[in-house]
Amino acid sequence: MAKVFDHAEVAQHNTAESCWVILYGNVYDVTRFLPEHPGGSKVILQLAGTDATVEYDPIHPPGILEENLEPSDKLGTINPDTLPKEEKTPKETGEVQDEGPVDLDSILNIDEIEEVATKQIPYKAWAYYYSASDDLQSKAFNGNVYRSILLRPRVFIDCTRCDTSTTFLGHQVKLPIYVSPAAMARLAHPDGEWGIAQACEKYGAMQIISQNASMTPEQIVANAGPNQVFGWQLYVQNERNKSEAMLARMNKLAACIKFICLTLDAPVPGKREHDERSKNVAANLPVRATTTTTVQEPQSQSLSKTSTKPKTMGMGQSLFWGTAADLTWRTTLPWLAEHTHLPIVLKGIQTHEDAYLASLHAPHVKAIILSNHGGRALDTAPPAVHTLLEIRKYCPEVFDRVEVWVDGGIKRGTDVVKAICLGARGVGVGRAALFGLGAGGTEGVARVLESKSSFPFLVVGFFFLGDWGRSVWICVANVWEIHSS
Amino acid sequence: MAKVFDHAEVAQHNTAESCWVILYGNVYDVTRFLPEHPGGSKVILQLAGTDATVEYDPIHPPGILEENLEPSDKLGTINPDTLPKEEKTPKETGEVQDEGPVDLDSILNIDEIEEVATKQIPYKAWAYYYSASDDLQSKAFNGNVYRSILLRPRVFIDCTRCDTSTTFLGHQVKLPIYVSPAAMARLAHPDGEWGIAQACEKYGAMQIISQNASMTPEQIVANAGPNQVFGWQLYVQNERNKSEAMLARMNKLAACIKFICLTLDAPVPGKREHDERSKNVAANLPVRATTTTTVQEPQSQSLSKTSTKPKTMGMGQSLFWGTAADLTWRTTLPWLAEHTHLPIVLKGIQTHEDAYLASLHAPHVKAIILSNHGGRALDTAPPAVHTLLEIRKYCPEVFDRVEVWVDGGIKRGTDVVKAICLGARGVGVGRAALFGLGAGGTEGVARVLESKSSFPFLVVGFFFLGDWGRSVWICVANVWEIHSS
Amino acid sequence: MAKVFDHAEVAQHNTAESCWVILYGNVYDVTRFLPEHPGGSKVILQLAGTDATVEYDPIHPPGILEENLEPSDKLGTINPDTLPKEEKTPKETGEVQDEGPVDLDSILNIDEIEEVATKQIPYKAWAYYYSASDDLQSKAFNGNVYRSILLRPRVFIDCTRCDTSTTFLGHQVKLPIYVSPAAMARLAHPDGEWGIAQACEKYGAMQIISQNASMTPEQIVANAGPNQVFGWQLYVQNERNKSEAMLARMNKLAACIKFICLTLDAPVPGKREHDERSKNVAANLPVRATTTTTVQEPQSQSLSKTSTKPKTMGMGQSLFWGTAADLTWRTTLPWLAEHTHLPIVLKGIQTHEDAYLASLHAPHVKAIILSNHGGRALDTAPPAVHTLLEIRKYCPEVFDRVEVWVDGGIKRGTDVVKAICLGARGVGVGRAALFGLGAGGTEGVARVLESKSSFPFLVVGFFFLGDWGRSVWICVANVWEIHSS
Amino acid sequence: MAKVFDHAEVAQHNTAESCWVILYGNVYDVTRFLPEHPGGSKVILQLAGTDATVEYDPIHPPGILEENLEPSDKLGTINPDTLPKEEKTPKETGEVQDEGPVDLDSILNIDEIEEVATKQIPYKAWAYYYSASDDLQSKAFNGNVYRSILLRPRVFIDCTRCDTSTTFLGHQVKLPIYVSPAAMARLAHPDGEWGIAQACEKYGAMQIISQNASMTPEQIVANAGPNQVFGWQLYVQNERNKSEAMLARMNKLAACIKFICLTLDAPVPGKREHDERSKNVAANLPVRATTTTTVQEPQSQSLSKTSTKPKTMGMGQSLFWGTAADLTWRTTLPWLAEHTHLPIVLKGIQTHEDAYLASLHAPHVKAIILSNHGGRALDTAPPAVHTLLEIRKYCPEVFDRVEVWVDGGIKRGTDVVKAICLGARGVGVGRAALFGLGAGGTEGVARVLESKSSFPFLVVGFFFLGDWGRSVWICVANVWEIHSS
Repeated sequence: MAKVFDHAEVAQHNTAESCWVILYGNVYDVTRFLPEHPGGSKVILQLAGTDATVEYDPIHPPGILEENLEPSDKLGTINPDTLPKEEKTPKETGEVQDEGPVDLDSILNIDEIEEVATKQIPYKAWAYYYSASDDLQSKAFNGNVYRSILLRPRVFIDCTRCDTSTTFLGHQVKLPIYVSPAAMARLAHPDGEWGIAQACEKYGAMQIISQNASMTPEQIVANAGPNQVFGWQLYVQNERNKSEAMLARMNKLAACIKFICLTLDAPVPGKREHDERSKNVAANLPVRATTTTTVQEPQSQSLSKTSTKPKTMGMGQSLFWGTAADLTWRTTLPWLAEHTHLPIVLKGIQTHEDAYLASLHAPHVKAIILSNHGGRALDTAPPAVHTLLEIRKYCPEVFDRVEVWVDGGIKRGTDVVKAICLGARGVGVGRAALFGLGAGGTEGVARVLESKSSFPFLVVGFFFLGDWGRSVWICVANVWEIHSS
Repeated sequence: MAKVFDHAEVAQHNTAESCWVILYGNVYDVTRFLPEHPGGSKVILQLAGTDATVEYDPIHPPGILEENLEPSDKLGTINPDTLPKEEKTPKETGEVQDEGPVDLDSILNIDEIEEVATKQIPYKAWAYYYSASDDLQSKAFNGNVYRSILLRPRVFIDCTRCDTSTTFLGHQVKLPIYVSPAAMARLAHPDGEWGIAQACEKYGAMQIISQNASMTPEQIVANAGPNQVFGWQLYVQNERNKSEAMLARMNKLAACIKFICLTLDAPVPGKREHDERSKNVAANLPVRATTTTTVQEPQSQSLSKTSTKPKTMGMGQSLFWGTAADLTWRTTLPWLAEHTHLPIVLKGIQTHEDAYLASLHAPHVKAIILSNHGGRALDTAPPAVHTLLEIRKYCPEVFDRVEVWVDGGIKRGTDVVKAICLGARGVGVGRAALFGLGAGGTEGVARVLESKSSFPFLVVGFFFLGDWGRSVWICVANVWEIHSS
Repeated sequence: MAKVFDHAEVAQHNTAESCWVILYGNVYDVTRFLPEHPGGSKVILQLAGTDATVEYDPIHPPGILEENLEPSDKLGTINPDTLPKEEKTPKETGEVQDEGPVDLDSILNIDEIEEVATKQIPYKAWAYYYSASDDLQSKAFNGNVYRSILLRPRVFIDCTRCDTSTTFLGHQVKLPIYVSPAAMARLAHPDGEWGIAQACEKYGAMQIISQNASMTPEQIVANAGPNQVFGWQLYVQNERNKSEAMLARMNKLAACIKFICLTLDAPVPGKREHDERSKNVAANLPVRATTTTTVQEPQSQSLSKTSTKPKTMGMGQSLFWGTAADLTWRTTLPWLAEHTHLPIVLKGIQTHEDAYLASLHAPHVKAIILSNHGGRALDTAPPAVHTLLEIRKYCPEVFDRVEVWVDGGIKRGTDVVKAICLGARGVGVGRAALFGLGAGGTEGVARVLESKSSFPFLVVGFFFLGDWGRSVWICVANVWEIHSS
Repeated sequence: MAKVFDHAEVAQHNTAESCWVILYGNVYDVTRFLPEHPGGSKVILQLAGTDATVEYDPIHPPGILEENLEPSDKLGTINPDTLPKEEKTPKETGEVQDEGPVDLDSILNIDEIEEVATKQIPYKAWAYYYSASDDLQSKAFNGNVYRSILLRPRVFIDCTRCDTSTTFLGHQVKLPIYVSPAAMARLAHPDGEWGIAQACEKYGAMQIISQNASMTPEQIVANAGPNQVFGWQLYVQNERNKSEAMLARMNKLAACIKFICLTLDAPVPGKREHDERSKNVAANLPVRATTTTTVQEPQSQSLSKTSTKPKTMGMGQSLFWGTAADLTWRTTLPWLAEHTHLPIVLKGIQTHEDAYLASLHAPHVKAIILSNHGGRALDTAPPAVHTLLEIRKYCPEVFDRVEVWVDGGIKRGTDVVKAICLGARGVGVGRAALFGLGAGGTEGVARVLESKSSFPFLVVGFFFLGDWGRSVWICVANVWEIHSS
């Protein structure tokens, strides 16, 4: 039977020499694990000797603890009566602040969704979602490029028959809009990635699950509808066996998860300064203040001896820990074929040359995603629309061989129309879904995907965020005539 | 003889089960009509049991009440002594606020007209006039495109003989500027569309009457001069017989109304967020506060039972209610020919392809209007100047077959010169007329159209808003040389 | 002998029926002249019955009074002891405000000259100098176009021999920079146009005298150096005999005045809103307040009877009064040849077509000035650099036939280099000279023209405003390679 | 033995007739030297009769005093007890202000380095570093041009092997980034140019020493590592023998100094208005206030007699004093060859024509630096990237004959990638190093050069400022496809 600890005893183990933490009522010795923690040891040491559940929970999927610790590291349970009754403000704990219920119907566009969410979610969640590389040039390009494309509306088109449904890799969906793989959804709302799945089910949208999701794939697909479509995003790990284990796990979920989405646009983590700065903000949490006080005690000397200058990282960097940078056309696709029979989608294509190379791997590769990782990887990388235009010009046969999806900067129904008219099969939205979650949980995501009207397009009919669709109706098929302003 | 009601009795009928309103001293039972109201039931329920005349009057033309209610719905008259003497502020009632008389001569340009009007007219009128789709990109393009075209003034041209007159469809007018069909003029000023007509008569300008005018066509043309030219704008209704009735009515007014202007650029209503938000502002009117109080009474429960979440819409959406989205080249023009012998003007052409198609329907179609609906329909639709340049390049024969009119963004005399030099026969102004009305009623519209000088152009001579004309004199005919900055 | 009046008697003649004013100690009856006043009758009526010298003086050259009045209109002299000792603030009287001496050496560029002058000169002077047409687009283009041209500096060029001198129409000058004809210099400083001439003499710069100068040509050239070069700007009057008289007067000054500069870019006055608004500001002067008080007296009734709504104009419009709009190639040049043997310079050429036509009139026409009148005539007219580039492309032979001068937007030495490299013989500065006058009288203008260094150019060497020159040294001759940014 | 003076005696020699100053405890008579001082006599006269060490020290390298004065000018030493104990604020003395230690790790980019330094360094240091010519257009172009070039990242590239090392003129370096010759480093921090050298040694970066360094070349290279690479920047002096003496001195340092960098882009000093204005700020120093007081004494009359208006200059101008403007291809390179056998690097090439001419002088000329002098020489000169593109287009053979280096506007690792992909061998950073010094002395410069990751490029692998490198990884080799946004 597990030993029961008093908080006072746990509190003494707050150094790099002996580091205990309380999680979900259990007491763990994480001393051995400290140097292996993807997020750096400092962030754990700041919580050493305390109940870290509130900080730990929203950014770690269930099971990850057991995966990384030995059974013997679990020392016992905590006597809850001995825990201090400290008052943490919602901001400090990272919980959603209660500013009264949000009237989702009063939110009219994606910018407003972001505005509402920004007020509600913890600072570090905002910093992680909002951040992009360097000077945020590519993030800005992503949005502005759609503003610079004018539509050419035709008249006398019967707009009464409309169908926004389409297929991705042969799977029927009701919207040409899917949710991109976006990590750490529970930072925004406890509904997390499961909540996104629920909203997608409601509107028939596809969802790609991030490898860095804050819930397990099994949890996310738990209530999936019979025709709901998911993909799973793979960051190949330096320790390939870890990736192989994940692929094996996906194979078991193949009823829901229809493809593997291999991420190619981030061989190294992006330089996201908002995210990096948020670690300092986090450093001002009361829990850390406690640790800091302790640091002035004798024990802290041994702490500083072991790691004089503990290295911290932004969320983005710590999630990236362990990702392989040695992928090649020659080695990676065959390795994937060995470990999964699911179709492959290549995410992060940014030149027509690579789009062409990818298309040569059809039908193993069934789709490519033109993406600059939301501007979060390499700043001044081109927006997806540029690559789409390149493919149209230099190698249009790509469209015949693989499906071309795009993401980045989609905020209006007209943006979706433009992408599709230029050859995309569908578009992904990432931040919009996360901010929707932050604005109203599952219902907030639903508001992002909501559509109320229907009408036809020459290419395909659809619309976006509630009433937005009304302003979008006809776009000529001969897109090479699209005029830049 | 009509029964006389006390206000107390009327006030009890303030639910969806029994909804009475007082209008112009009469008491009506509108319970049956609630679900049919184009603006939604909620806006009526907010005024249920009260005297709604002030809210109703400026946005409904006379006769519309009788058209929609049964004779039996008129219950009797109100005893005015029983009405509460509530103090409504001008802002609340939507009446023009008195900030002292405006010196119209001190207004030097269209932007100042808008500025003055914005201060004077009710918020919801401003929101309806000002609003455009989505991010207001097309509205901004409309104006900026003229700034990006430079004139090439010639010297040693005798500028003493000048004539700004021209013809539209063969009808003589004194200005190449007409007032576009703009709805809800009485929101800005009681003079309404009739006031616009008076100002047009003063300066010999043409006017196109909106189907959604806040006065009847008969009222608007009531004091028309012998040579005054009007057109009437048709939004084809899903119930075609309603449109056919309107066309029959126009045929009787053919002494004044010289053509039917068929609107093509709005098969679905635009997403005008300023307008949509103004409904919430309107929801703060005291009259609604009263209703809200009532809502907490037992009756309100039955209200919420019937329509738990009454849907409201912006002005633009509610005006749009019932408009047909199934117009086609093949069906609509023949149908029109059956019901009117008036010439047809097609409004909302936005590509040279459609301009060309329209020109094939001459002489039934006598003119086309290049318009993106003032940026109010599809955002990122091209400004009229783009389409004008397309026609010049790809199918200049269009200019020989039909007259080409343009609207959107015209604010300076130089804008008019540029449009005409590029091939337009004339230009329409919409918001400028409405804001002129808001700034000073009939005289305000006159100030917009006023011109004091005259001098010649190689193409056609004219000028704009009083002294503006002075800065405009010569523009070369070889417009293909116009330089973008 | 002249009668001596008391102020009390003069003060009674303050209506349109009997309007007296005191000027330079004399009493005049200007009743008859009221309707002929180029600036409108209202501006005189506002000063009726008072001593108007302070308002009159800076905007009227000597002799103009005698030219316009009959001898009998001069009634006598005023008894100065009877004049009220009213305290006029410098702002009100239009005198230069004393904010302490300006250290001209601390002014480093033209923008700072304007900034200093703006603080010092009366509001109506600022409004007249600063104003340009409509939205000030052309004024802005004039400056920005030079920012958009990059220089291509060469290395290993010996920069020790430098000569900024050049010739205009064969006359030697020390700078390729001349002062453009700019009106109403005494509004800025009592030194007026004479002060500008003194500064030009100091640095060997040419000056073109405005027909609307606030001093007579004779006064302006009074202290001219033996080699000082002037031109005189002609606005042809509707009453040709007035222009002919002026030309005869210039013929007598031919020792100094070397050419006639015919203005072509303003057949009608520009719409300068800043200038128009300043009339309202002027209307708040105490002197007018006095008149306004009088207006409430019985006499004012007769005033309002005669001219119920006296029309006022901005300075620009009133100066323009009487200018002919019927000039043509066929009639105007021969008429000029009849009345002067001075060479002709055509100012206001804005297209290569007109530059070409002008060059066919060489050698009668010896130079053309590419100018959009400082953006003060037609808004969105092209900057001179555009026309220069057009000529280079379509008809470079123009450069061989006539000298090409440019003005508008010159603020840096690099601007001068660019204009000359593109084919201009020299450049004019207008506002800079007026603001220099405002900043420091004659010395302020000198600061604008000052140059301290000298170094060579492939084309011609020179520099601008004191130390500015240092930053300008080499510009390649093959200007067709100039790159736009 | 040297005479010992009391301060009271020295203080009397504060005029142009007899001007003594105290420096490093010695008393000097600088009366004779006054008119020769490159920075003008006024700046010395402001300090006449006082201890000028604090003002003198950071802007003069050791030895310069002895070089310019006669032995007899050194009068003796000061009795330190007689010196006034005046309280100078750090701002006044120009010392670094203590705002607490800066956490260099928290600085994430070059803009933040500049921000931190700006708060810490004296105003005149900031003004000298920050300033650029005229309107700072070229300075702005330098940075913006990199933002307008988009990268085209390739996928499936093995990024695990990375080497940022390269060679300059055959010398191995670890970074393709060198420190440009930047003057007056001790204004920012006492570590000065020596500190920059230490930081360069730490990261294997090359450094070019400015002729106007605030330390002697011997001091700067004092602790150079065995493989550390330096160049020395020559401004040819009008008195050629001075330059020849310097070249001889460099020949002796040839173990460290591997080339002579001849500056060509500043035949005359730039017009740097921020720098010029800072002299006025300096004029408010208390020491000057003292002088000013003295000026009202009789002695001041003789002062004003000798030099009624002492001329002051900005730092940039005074450093420039004596620089030759008569360099030519024909004369200068042969003269250089006579006086040094070190390879020549030509700095300031701004056109492809001159790049081509320079390449004809290989192998004497071994490299060219495309530079507009940080925007500090001729405003609206082109950014180096323009010239790089010109060379690629018109004369790519230049790349085969000489190394092409670029500087100006480099702030991100992506900027370095772009320059190299376009053909540059390496890039220089000037202001970044100086501001790094201001932010944290030697460690601050190290932070600028720091790099933590490594990964390969098709062209060459490298990165910049710490974590920046992470966002930069792949850039295609076929750079002619680089897209402008």
